Amino acid sequence: MVADMISTTLPTFADVEAAAVRLAGQAVLTPLLESPLLNDRLGGRLLVKAEVLQRTGSFKFRGAFNRMSLIPEAERPRGVVAFSSGNHAQGVAAAARLLGLPATIVMPSDAPAIKVANTREWGARVVLYDRWKEDREAIGAGISAETGATLVRPYDDPYIMAGQGTIGLELIEQAKAASDGLDAVLAPCGGGGMIGGIALAVAARSPGTKVYAVEPAGFDDTARSLAAGERLSNAAGASSFCDALLAPMPGELTFAVNSAHLSGGFAVTDAEVAAAMAIARDNFKLVVEPGGAVALAAVLSTKMELGGRTIAVVCSGGNVDPEVYAKALASVR
Amino acid sequence: MVADMISTTLPTFADVEAAAVRLAGQAVLTPLLESPLLNDRLGGRLLVKAEVLQRTGSFKFRGAFNRMSLIPEAERPRGVVAFSSGNHAQGVAAAARLLGLPATIVMPSDAPAIKVANTREWGARVVLYDRWKEDREAIGAGISAETGATLVRPYDDPYIMAGQGTIGLELIEQAKAASDGLDAVLAPCGGGGMIGGIALAVAARSPGTKVYAVEPAGFDDTARSLAAGERLSNAAGASSFCDALLAPMPGELTFAVNSAHLSGGFAVTDAEVAAAMAIARDNFKLVVEPGGAVALAAVLSTKMELGGRTIAVVCSGGNVDPEVYAKALASVR
Repeated sequence: MVADMISTTLPTFADVEAAAVRLAGQAVLTPLLESPLLNDRLGGRLLVKAEVLQRTGSFKFRGAFNRMSLIPEAERPRGVVAFSSGNHAQGVAAAARLLGLPATIVMPSDAPAIKVANTREWGARVVLYDRWKEDREAIGAGISAETGATLVRPYDDPYIMAGQGTIGLELIEQAKAASDGLDAVLAPCGGGGMIGGIALAVAARSPGTKVYAVEPAGFDDTARSLAAGERLSNAAGASSFCDALLAPMPGELTFAVNSAHLSGGFAVTDAEVAAAMAIARDNFKLVVEPGGAVALAAVLSTKMELGGRTIAVVCSGGNVDPEVYAKALASVR
Repeated sequence: MVADMISTTLPTFADVEAAAVRLAGQAVLTPLLESPLLNDRLGGRLLVKAEVLQRTGSFKFRGAFNRMSLIPEAERPRGVVAFSSGNHAQGVAAAARLLGLPATIVMPSDAPAIKVANTREWGARVVLYDRWKEDREAIGAGISAETGATLVRPYDDPYIMAGQGTIGLELIEQAKAASDGLDAVLAPCGGGGMIGGIALAVAARSPGTKVYAVEPAGFDDTARSLAAGERLSNAAGASSFCDALLAPMPGELTFAVNSAHLSGGFAVTDAEVAAAMAIARDNFKLVVEPGGAVALAAVLSTKMELGGRTIAVVCSGGNVDPEVYAKALASVR
């Protein structure tokens, strides 16, 4: 039996508020940081939501815990299954440990070693697959069918989106305490779950604030889909070291939310991302993984100019292999 | 005229509480972080006070702002002068900017470049000196005598200690929310101002919690002085890459407080510190400078064993030159 339970209804702001209640005391209320020296250089106020400090080192715990809290008692012993390049894997594994559920995670064999190791350390069973030859969704669905485990999707699920949206709730409240107004929020975008959830919170709590998705160059499916008004895929053959953001196209539910709420998207190069990782180290003392640094990169590269305004960016994860981190930082001079 | 105004009275817990009021909205309430995976490995609960996220990238802003808030209006135009290897420099410079005071900072010519550059960027005038040939206290006192600037000492001042003590106030409150009890607090120790301020807060708010100073090997003057019951100097010729913690001997006021309140001290090697910097990167996603990582190093090296207990460490600063940071991390395998 497939205990998939996927809802096809779109998440609402009430779902985000309900997620915040479930996550209270479980998720870290991550700080919103600011560097006056960097503000001087950029000419405006840049606020950084330090989501690398979240449990498991990325925002993914929020959505996973929110979604998994809703699994009925009777289905919990059959556990959960998820497919993920790494951050969702750790989020699901950590939530499973807290909720006492068995977890199986399907991960690509070329996922960052730190992400695979941590997922195992959280107590999950890891099944590796070849991302060029095998279909992770089919593998996940197969395990779900065999074991009756609940499939926990990485983004195209209203409760996952609502969980990630709690970042937006916190951010708006923190920005109100720090600043007179918030002109825009930029967040990394893979499948679009985090940016969609954030957009719901911003629309409800700070309707004058614009929300933008940021993607790696070559993987800007959401930006192009928003411009075209329909879901478009990424061209084959692109590459980026932003391993967390390589989704092939926007999700159905995420695109429905994002096309209603986002003002657009930006794409950044690997070199721009590496430069952002160095600024995160020097000005914010944060270790940010490539995919977690794209929104910061969009501002630093002036794709999104600060121009005297107040803009918040989400640094969404910090799970980077030491060698990749060192190499990225060494490339910046 | 020397507007030194140094008090020779010891700080009290009431001074720490008063400092917290002055710092509200000015200092970052830094998070207390935890890594369940690391806890599993260590066998206990390790709480990390992420003071690298403080304004200016180290705790020093707290004491500097508290002390400088107390400069009488009439003396403010004459400004402040301070001597510092870097973190106190930035703290004083940032506080001066907020309070609208001119600041002159006397720094050793071999201070980390990032600390000198940031001090200038905060708007302070930097005077470099040769730490092997010149006496920084004499230079600072000379500038103070010439200009009438108020000398802001790095640690041996009750209001500096009280400001740093707000770390302890926050930490105790955060630990109470996170855990049933807190067995010990460990913090880096140079001149002893931070650990002394923290000890005052802990004694008042969590009297069952022990407090320990952690120093670099070869610079364990506080640990040896506590054991001997009198102030002892470090032997000449020692070296450490913990540039923030190379004070020659305990301060008068700091030693008076610390000998009354501390349970002892630990010394850690540079290699142990580098390993702690790597764990801070991997498990807490924090960039920690060598001197900021010594307390974490004391626990990771099992000089202070966790043994099922709950222990908090302060990671006190993150201002490390990129090359030093990369080299330290590359040394850990």
